[in-house]
Amino acid sequence: MLPTLYLDEGKRALVILDQTKLPNQFVMLELKTQEEIYEAIKALKVRGAPAIGDAAAIGLYLAGAKSKAKDFAAFYEEMQKSAAYLNSSRPTAVNLSWALKRMLSCLEKNKQQSIPALKELLCAEAKAICAEDIASCHKIGEYGLSLIKPNYGILTHCNAGSLATAKYGTATAPMYLAHESGMNIHVYADETRPLLQGARLTATELKMAGLDVTLLCDNMAASLMQTGKINAVFVGCDRVTKNGDVANKIGTCGVAILAHYYNIPFYVCAPTSTLDLNTPCGKDINIEQRDPIEVTEMWYEKRMVPKDIDVYNPAFDVTEHNLVSAIITERGIVRAPYDKSLAALLR
Amino acid sequence: MLPTLYLDEGKRALVILDQTKLPNQFVMLELKTQEEIYEAIKALKVRGAPAIGDAAAIGLYLAGAKSKAKDFAAFYEEMQKSAAYLNSSRPTAVNLSWALKRMLSCLEKNKQQSIPALKELLCAEAKAICAEDIASCHKIGEYGLSLIKPNYGILTHCNAGSLATAKYGTATAPMYLAHESGMNIHVYADETRPLLQGARLTATELKMAGLDVTLLCDNMAASLMQTGKINAVFVGCDRVTKNGDVANKIGTCGVAILAHYYNIPFYVCAPTSTLDLNTPCGKDINIEQRDPIEVTEMWYEKRMVPKDIDVYNPAFDVTEHNLVSAIITERGIVRAPYDKSLAALLR
Repeated sequence: MLPTLYLDEGKRALVILDQTKLPNQFVMLELKTQEEIYEAIKALKVRGAPAIGDAAAIGLYLAGAKSKAKDFAAFYEEMQKSAAYLNSSRPTAVNLSWALKRMLSCLEKNKQQSIPALKELLCAEAKAICAEDIASCHKIGEYGLSLIKPNYGILTHCNAGSLATAKYGTATAPMYLAHESGMNIHVYADETRPLLQGARLTATELKMAGLDVTLLCDNMAASLMQTGKINAVFVGCDRVTKNGDVANKIGTCGVAILAHYYNIPFYVCAPTSTLDLNTPCGKDINIEQRDPIEVTEMWYEKRMVPKDIDVYNPAFDVTEHNLVSAIITERGIVRAPYDKSLAALLR
Repeated sequence: MLPTLYLDEGKRALVILDQTKLPNQFVMLELKTQEEIYEAIKALKVRGAPAIGDAAAIGLYLAGAKSKAKDFAAFYEEMQKSAAYLNSSRPTAVNLSWALKRMLSCLEKNKQQSIPALKELLCAEAKAICAEDIASCHKIGEYGLSLIKPNYGILTHCNAGSLATAKYGTATAPMYLAHESGMNIHVYADETRPLLQGARLTATELKMAGLDVTLLCDNMAASLMQTGKINAVFVGCDRVTKNGDVANKIGTCGVAILAHYYNIPFYVCAPTSTLDLNTPCGKDINIEQRDPIEVTEMWYEKRMVPKDIDVYNPAFDVTEHNLVSAIITERGIVRAPYDKSLAALLR
């Protein structure tokens, strides 16, 4: 599996795979300062909500390790400033602020400790955040694996992969665990226009990990299902509402409808951190419209449509709960009726 | 409407819009020799089965007009050679050989005529072929228009547009006629990966003709239908089998399933020349797999997936007849049961 990030304690460095260089180059970067880590998050060299949280936590530890503060107040003030700085690297990822708050909270709970001890505690907390990310993905993988049989063809969309977390990913976790257990499966990755996360990231990480993977354009999924080669669909998600509606990368809803038509199970891999039971249903989610240039010019040698064309470019879509066969979390698998099963899971 | 091609009798030239320059440049080419026309067809400067037939017919007339032959036998031999040459410009388009055979047959039927008269007859036959193409598209447009109401949102896939015919196109004909009649409609064009015919051709020709058109990535169609903005889908087709199954550009079948799910009518525009009642059903159609490079590299500044990745890249898919609301031909609209209605149409 491609390494996404890890703390090299000896070198006091956050080591990341530079995802902006994929799939043509595999470059590991050693980041030693908070400024380098801020820039890496901002420039999407490391991306994916859990991975950003992990990177920021390690970044705060590394900043703290260099501190020359003599007392708790001074040290804590420095750490607060560093956390605010790291938190400003990306505007919306909830895991980023969550991880940094947890690091600061660890300090507050241990005010009475010496500065060297506090630095050790920050190191341990950052490592715990990464380890919990990996453990959560592994659990999703275990539950997901129970839904996979040998020689399954599995379709996925976008990248809910190991590159978005410290290891395993969410939608990809069952695939990695199947592969690790020696089970033969074949993964089909939608390229996922317009940003091509499926081609650039999912196909790349699965191929590098030794899995059998085939790339297809988004509009080829129906044809593939018609051939009978797809036994299950696994996707990640950005948010699950109280009734089980799922917001995920644009194109997910279409895949779900095709799977429904061809009687193929459609599974959503969702860490419980993405369950938002305060939002009643998918219609209550505001969908971000993105820059037309992503569709008309990005990646291309030249513009592919005339100037001033209108473009529909939503970042996400909503898959209605009736199309979702099951939601796979680190706490277990839940099925319809989701309003009851999701609430029970979080109780 | 963008001019696809026409015969300029004064200049003795086939005038075409160079489609390889779209959408960034609008260049009209005046082609006066059969060699220039052969090259233009081969290099896809003019493309689309009907348009290629039209171009080849005009090419044969222009070759004949230059002939210095003194008797029918010599003239006919020259024309046979020219027809064989023009016919070799593209391997599979049935309209190409059909148009050239029709031109030669016109000569055979008029052996007794003088060479100058034969040249005039070739001119008239080429113009008739183009006029019949336009008339057929216009009829499809008229029938299709009867299915459209003011303020409809219409989704289309790939390019079954005026650029593939002498004028109007097939799937686009109802849209052009709606526009010409002053009816307000809004067209949504799938970009149609991997070759982007929707972005490069359909969006371009509709925009240039003054229609309201919005471009979307293929995977955004479900999201758009969910918003209620799509009232009907119109697509072209490459072949219709006896039972009403439809082979068309990859992605068509997926759009049909989405339309079915959202209760949106799905119309196939098919000149009767594409009805193949000798083939029982879609499963009997052999689907061409194309070069992976179209998905992994074409149009891009750099490769978007790792080397040696497997790619699924079928050129076409089959839409099952149960998903087709109606088939619109130049002879009328037919509906299920297609095995009966299609046979009756051709009787």
